[in-house]
Amino acid sequence: MQIACPEASGAALRTVQTHESTAALVAHPGWFCPFSQRAWIVLEEKKVSYQYKETNPHTKDKNFLAINPKGLIPVISHKGVNVSESQVVMEYLEDITGPDVRMYPADALQRAVARMWIDHIAKKIVPCFFRVLQAQEVEKQRAAETDLLAGITDFVNAMDPGGPFFFGDWFSMVDAFIAPWMMRSEYVMKHFKGFDMPQRGSGPVWSRWWTFVEAVQTRKSVVDTTSELEHYLPNLQKYANDTAQTQAAKATREGRDYS
Amino acid sequence: MQIACPEASGAALRTVQTHESTAALVAHPGWFCPFSQRAWIVLEEKKVSYQYKETNPHTKDKNFLAINPKGLIPVISHKGVNVSESQVVMEYLEDITGPDVRMYPADALQRAVARMWIDHIAKKIVPCFFRVLQAQEVEKQRAAETDLLAGITDFVNAMDPGGPFFFGDWFSMVDAFIAPWMMRSEYVMKHFKGFDMPQRGSGPVWSRWWTFVEAVQTRKSVVDTTSELEHYLPNLQKYANDTAQTQAAKATREGRDYS
Repeated sequence: MQIACPEASGAALRTVQTHESTAALVAHPGWFCPFSQRAWIVLEEKKVSYQYKETNPHTKDKNFLAINPKGLIPVISHKGVNVSESQVVMEYLEDITGPDVRMYPADALQRAVARMWIDHIAKKIVPCFFRVLQAQEVEKQRAAETDLLAGITDFVNAMDPGGPFFFGDWFSMVDAFIAPWMMRSEYVMKHFKGFDMPQRGSGPVWSRWWTFVEAVQTRKSVVDTTSELEHYLPNLQKYANDTAQTQAAKATREGRDYS
Repeated sequence: MQIACPEASGAALRTVQTHESTAALVAHPGWFCPFSQRAWIVLEEKKVSYQYKETNPHTKDKNFLAINPKGLIPVISHKGVNVSESQVVMEYLEDITGPDVRMYPADALQRAVARMWIDHIAKKIVPCFFRVLQAQEVEKQRAAETDLLAGITDFVNAMDPGGPFFFGDWFSMVDAFIAPWMMRSEYVMKHFKGFDMPQRGSGPVWSRWWTFVEAVQTRKSVVDTTSELEHYLPNLQKYANDTAQTQAAKATREGRDYS
């Protein structure tokens, strides 16, 4: 599958350009891929030295399949090992960096809380986004919207009330894990599916949600890994038509969740 | 939903009986639940002091829903926090115990390898087991069997060649994560669906697989958390008829993966 725009643009392109040199840790993300952006945000937050290699998994390039036989991005290659799956990559980056750039809570119980809500985002929020975007019937779209809002409501109710982030004023793995869907939840679902999220005035849950969204969207690591919004649309058009051939798109089409 | 046998039997019952006293850490497993058994195996491996409270999530008991509003087991209650999702519980138990009972590799890269294969078990092996068991048409059962054998083959090819466990002679989280499905893969699928796994003589993959299965099945922590096999059958009959009402069963019926 060709992608309309082969490389990052805007702020993300500037970040790519500062990470072209060889480094011990090589990141294989796709600029358009929300699963990749999770790992990329963590690399930027932690100021890890890394080389960025733009990867289009749809080309089934042999060199890339040698790195990850499952053909999925992101992958981090380090010390001869290829680490795949965004959450595994995030745990790895936490493990190899110091407490000054910690993104999981230091306390074991709070770390468990973070991992429970990451699991919730993976199972109860992200799959609903794909279901809304790929729905071809109004009834299915409405059911997906209902599930999405329920998943977000539970998540918001677990947040630190003051915010702006999940754990308060500290940007954690929970925030990084959902961040790539912030822009999409607002812009993409409205653009393709006419779906308006409840606004601030709709009650305390949505007031807290938008405080969270605005803080995440303007976080430097998120801004610096986000391309110009209009460049996401040609790829996402295939989702909106339900003709995309990515694993996430196929799973959703077959009625399965993807996380 | 009633369960035919309300409590553990055999070796598992003896383990329950030694964990009836109050303890700071309270485990809420179901004796029949493979997701619970994962956490229970880790509690036993690490010799954690815990109180066992048999939990039937199907009764929608209000006291249990207060502990986990999602109504899922296992849950570990510790210091006022309820930790759910088997993998999150396992990470938590690793975090609060010392290096002498470590179940993830000490090396960060090898820890990432462990987490990648745990992800593989969750996405590519366990859902196939439910698909085989719940299939009501031969064609669907055959497709699920093919996917199950492919998922197992990839897993076996990543194992330490000598074994017997995934990382060699050391019983790790990877082994604990798949352990509850060992007994089921052999006994249950054959009993209900007439599905014979390829035997030792079928080639090096299956020789290595059965070395693994035998080592896992005879591991003390696995034996001590396993009830008498025939007592699993009445619950699993509902899966085999595809009338079970658990979240795993419903997800599989709707064509979604459950992990």
